[in-house]
Amino acid sequence: MSQYVEELVKKARASSYRLNNLDPKIKKAALLKMAAALLKAKDYILRENQKDLIAAANKNLPASFIDRLTLDEKRLRSMAGSLKEIARFPDPVGKVIRQWKRPNGMTIKKIRVPIGVVLMIYEARPNVTSDCAGLLFKSNNVGILRGGSDALNSNLAIAAVLQKAVRSAGVKFEPFFLVEKTEHELLDELLKQSETIDLVIPRGGEGLIRKVAETSRIPVIKHYKGVCHIFVDATADFKKALKICVNAKVQRPGVCNAVEKILVHKNIAAKFLPLLKKEFDRYKVEIRADSAAVAILPGVKKAHADDWSAEYLDLIITVGVVKNAEAAIVHINQFGSHHTDSILTKNKANSERFLREVDSACCFANISTRLSDGQQFGLGAEIGISTDKLHARGPMGVEDLTTYKYIVTGSGQVRE
Amino acid sequence: MSQYVEELVKKARASSYRLNNLDPKIKKAALLKMAAALLKAKDYILRENQKDLIAAANKNLPASFIDRLTLDEKRLRSMAGSLKEIARFPDPVGKVIRQWKRPNGMTIKKIRVPIGVVLMIYEARPNVTSDCAGLLFKSNNVGILRGGSDALNSNLAIAAVLQKAVRSAGVKFEPFFLVEKTEHELLDELLKQSETIDLVIPRGGEGLIRKVAETSRIPVIKHYKGVCHIFVDATADFKKALKICVNAKVQRPGVCNAVEKILVHKNIAAKFLPLLKKEFDRYKVEIRADSAAVAILPGVKKAHADDWSAEYLDLIITVGVVKNAEAAIVHINQFGSHHTDSILTKNKANSERFLREVDSACCFANISTRLSDGQQFGLGAEIGISTDKLHARGPMGVEDLTTYKYIVTGSGQVRE
Repeated sequence: MSQYVEELVKKARASSYRLNNLDPKIKKAALLKMAAALLKAKDYILRENQKDLIAAANKNLPASFIDRLTLDEKRLRSMAGSLKEIARFPDPVGKVIRQWKRPNGMTIKKIRVPIGVVLMIYEARPNVTSDCAGLLFKSNNVGILRGGSDALNSNLAIAAVLQKAVRSAGVKFEPFFLVEKTEHELLDELLKQSETIDLVIPRGGEGLIRKVAETSRIPVIKHYKGVCHIFVDATADFKKALKICVNAKVQRPGVCNAVEKILVHKNIAAKFLPLLKKEFDRYKVEIRADSAAVAILPGVKKAHADDWSAEYLDLIITVGVVKNAEAAIVHINQFGSHHTDSILTKNKANSERFLREVDSACCFANISTRLSDGQQFGLGAEIGISTDKLHARGPMGVEDLTTYKYIVTGSGQVRE
Repeated sequence: MSQYVEELVKKARASSYRLNNLDPKIKKAALLKMAAALLKAKDYILRENQKDLIAAANKNLPASFIDRLTLDEKRLRSMAGSLKEIARFPDPVGKVIRQWKRPNGMTIKKIRVPIGVVLMIYEARPNVTSDCAGLLFKSNNVGILRGGSDALNSNLAIAAVLQKAVRSAGVKFEPFFLVEKTEHELLDELLKQSETIDLVIPRGGEGLIRKVAETSRIPVIKHYKGVCHIFVDATADFKKALKICVNAKVQRPGVCNAVEKILVHKNIAAKFLPLLKKEFDRYKVEIRADSAAVAILPGVKKAHADDWSAEYLDLIITVGVVKNAEAAIVHINQFGSHHTDSILTKNKANSERFLREVDSACCFANISTRLSDGQQFGLGAEIGISTDKLHARGPMGVEDLTTYKYIVTGSGQVRE
């Protein structure tokens, strides 16, 4: 192991034991100080961000990349706002999940505790540094934050400002660590430290997540792609269905809960599809369709086999005709990404069947897939939307950054 | 991918979608029929087991191995008894964990659902086949059961009898699959099927678990070793402490919740250690001790550095002297296996600190580590004791074989 990684994980583990004893009042005060410090250090942070932006421009990185890398006063205010919101959340740590007494007189308490040391891996988006630092600190976890190398100056500045703020609140140890060396070999090494790091959460594109999942010897919670479906059943209310389809595709096409596929019941396809096309034309959404839909919408592009599992994150949609709810369910379980899928129907039996049989984190009836979101669900700030089934599934709030332990007390009980 | 693995995971996935619709009454009836069938097919199963036993004897496998491989009428009755108990449990599937309504009028239900397809990997213990088949079926999961190759005839017989019993209850698909080809290459291939298998649970020795954890591309819940500690604090009640130490070491030394290390507060070491040695001598427990303890117990063997993290599973114990509760906590977090650790004390502050700061699945005060067990906790039949922190920690009951999904219903809501 390189000395850098060895020291980093050792310090992180030491902090994790000290975080177990953090006073919740000090924690709240520290989070508010973190928010204030970001705004106070505005000039410094933006200056450091400028260095990253110049380097990125010299490397001819794409405009969308530069946009995500850019900080300005508005974005800093939004980052500070998130930290203030995290400060106000109920404390997720120490809560008794269940408590009971056994016939032998011993008392069992199942209580929420932090997971320990969490490695966050993300791309060149400096705002993620403060979001993750806040969420992990709130849940008494030690963060090891490894952001994209193109944002290193920005991340170092943000981390230094936040760490100083936490210390000024009376916390006498490092609450999180920013990985200052962004070589890929060091990341691979970090991903093998299963003795000292308890969990890895990658945030970013599919390529990053797949690479982390394949390299890691530490448990990973993945937020893979969202190939979200809407199934418009024979009994759907057309007006509502059109509004939902448009909202799900158009309101913010670049995110994982935007709809990518629309399946329409064959009995209404001839009537519904032309109305849908008219709406999508208004927003310049490109339609790719199966043969049955092309027959109804002449001139529309034929979908390739790959289209059915593609996440476009763009104003493109694949449309198909299915013979009934069962066929829609089978199709979604085969081609979807187990993220969020919605049925639009007035038929109660079909709705129940869809909600039960679709194997996705979020199964919706008569609402837009865009509502699949921690804030919309009322879970507060979101770590991401897990497409895994273990530990956390669907929108992941700060409570999902905890685990539990059993505390059992007695008066001399032994195993008989 | 080999054709065998491809067909196996495809069939398993198909069954998993059908299990979503299993009537709980049919499930219960099927579990009771499974129990009855095991006893009815006694002659057949014991005959097949005999083949494995002869082969194992010819291979000169050790007596403890042969013991675990052996079935007899008593063991079959116990396997049937477990299945009956599983049938009686409350159904873990479909339970509403939480339900709430959002300001926009949509209703969110977080409900328990099966994980899907679960690969169980275990050694040559045929009873595990029926236990796992029962627990996974109870939680609507499809089991892919891969037992040790030396138990293949026994496992095939048990699986065939149980599958026939399930079908006789009116279930029209295979509820679980036994891996009939036990080549290691096939297991490695299975461990890569992350698209079709949702979870892997290895059960067995540390070597098996480590190998599975290193090979698997599928999430693994590990049940690693139990290096359990007892810390005898300065204020411990000697009589109770001696009883607990003896129970924790002697009552069943070969299991993961038996105590392996005893740390004694320096203020009582000179009085307590000779009493402890006297008890352990009665049961022929070998003591290995640090220098401070050797000074009190002349003639006792000095512990090696390796002893502090060793899981003996035998009548051997390492004993040390520590200066206070804090030192005990630091030692346990460093050398333990995060399984089960117990403090014996009358000092409330020390007890609270120990329970809070020890980073183990089960933190005990004034009870024997042997009580760390699903049955003892009242969780019913146990899958094992997870030393992982994700998804399931500590004694793992049938509810831990479920995940959840969000079912959200509305009347046309979109993202504003």
